[in-house]
Amino acid sequence: MLLADIGNTNVKLFDGSELKVVPVAAFDMHAIEQEVIYASVNHAFQEALSRADNFVNIETLFDRKQYHPELGIDRILAISTIENGVVLDAGSAITVEVVKEGDYVGGYILPGVYHLQKAFASISPVLDCSFNFDFDLATMPENTTDAMSYGMFKPLYHDVKSYGMDIILTGGDARKLKLLFKEARVDELLLFHGMKKLLEHR
Amino acid sequence: MLLADIGNTNVKLFDGSELKVVPVAAFDMHAIEQEVIYASVNHAFQEALSRADNFVNIETLFDRKQYHPELGIDRILAISTIENGVVLDAGSAITVEVVKEGDYVGGYILPGVYHLQKAFASISPVLDCSFNFDFDLATMPENTTDAMSYGMFKPLYHDVKSYGMDIILTGGDARKLKLLFKEARVDELLLFHGMKKLLEHR
Repeated sequence: MLLADIGNTNVKLFDGSELKVVPVAAFDMHAIEQEVIYASVNHAFQEALSRADNFVNIETLFDRKQYHPELGIDRILAISTIENGVVLDAGSAITVEVVKEGDYVGGYILPGVYHLQKAFASISPVLDCSFNFDFDLATMPENTTDAMSYGMFKPLYHDVKSYGMDIILTGGDARKLKLLFKEARVDELLLFHGMKKLLEHR
Repeated sequence: MLLADIGNTNVKLFDGSELKVVPVAAFDMHAIEQEVIYASVNHAFQEALSRADNFVNIETLFDRKQYHPELGIDRILAISTIENGVVLDAGSAITVEVVKEGDYVGGYILPGVYHLQKAFASISPVLDCSFNFDFDLATMPENTTDAMSYGMFKPLYHDVKSYGMDIILTGGDARKLKLLFKEARVDELLLFHGMKKLLEHR
């Protein structure tokens, strides 16, 4: 059995030991013969996946109604893994989820690193820079790259810290955010832990 | 004499009493015969403007060297108008500038409302929504629109408030941000006040 986390940019496959990341455009579902339990936020894939007998949507394996209908499966899985903490899933989007004593407090969403950089670049060529995640939180920025990084991530940093809980980073840009959230724990397999937990407890 | 604020999306013209906003693509500089003192952050326009005799770049009329070279003219003008406060200029980009006792403390930049919405929409059709600026700061969001609005603007709100100073909103989206920053003052002519002040004191 394979576990698959199908995002808007990448498909992540986990066989229990190894993580394989494939861009959505290069993912050939028909090349996989074994059973795949998948979580998908990619609406374009939905129909093809539902027609494949060996692909099982994890959302059909538990009581989806206990969660808000607008809460994506990726967020449900991320929050199911922790008792107390703030989970930042930094992929195509950055989702922030707060869990207190096993209960989901709530969460919010921002565009992901790539899409934010693209947004800046589309405003002016002057803003076509990559973020510096290792900027100084205590000093006002001195150049454009830092002003962009500070503007997007300093308010977010303080908001995430304001919950006073452990911070867990996952998603493709987890290691970039770790440069800013130095005290955070990185767990690139967090969603797969959530899938396993859900499969065990159903 | 006309004053012009040439941004990346719009050209704003001010004759001392009336404000005229023209999309950059529709702006015909050759149709204007009178003297125009302009401030421009639009690099694509720079060369054509420098060839027109009746267009005077305000950056040539004061000692530009007293400001950091990466500090755009729009930001210099915005901060020159206030003694104490935080200025949010919400246009193609959202710039935040802090001024304390007449001194520029520093500032930062985020993509503007339109570009942030476009960034969300390009991630997934599910995120193709307009922001709700009148969301509840005290309650975690319950739907996608609020989760996007809260994610982008709640951390920013608290950061801006953390300076404990007056908040001044300007730019094309000032009235949208006013729904969130209820205590702020809106001044759509702020940059023109800055231009006038600069012209008087040179």
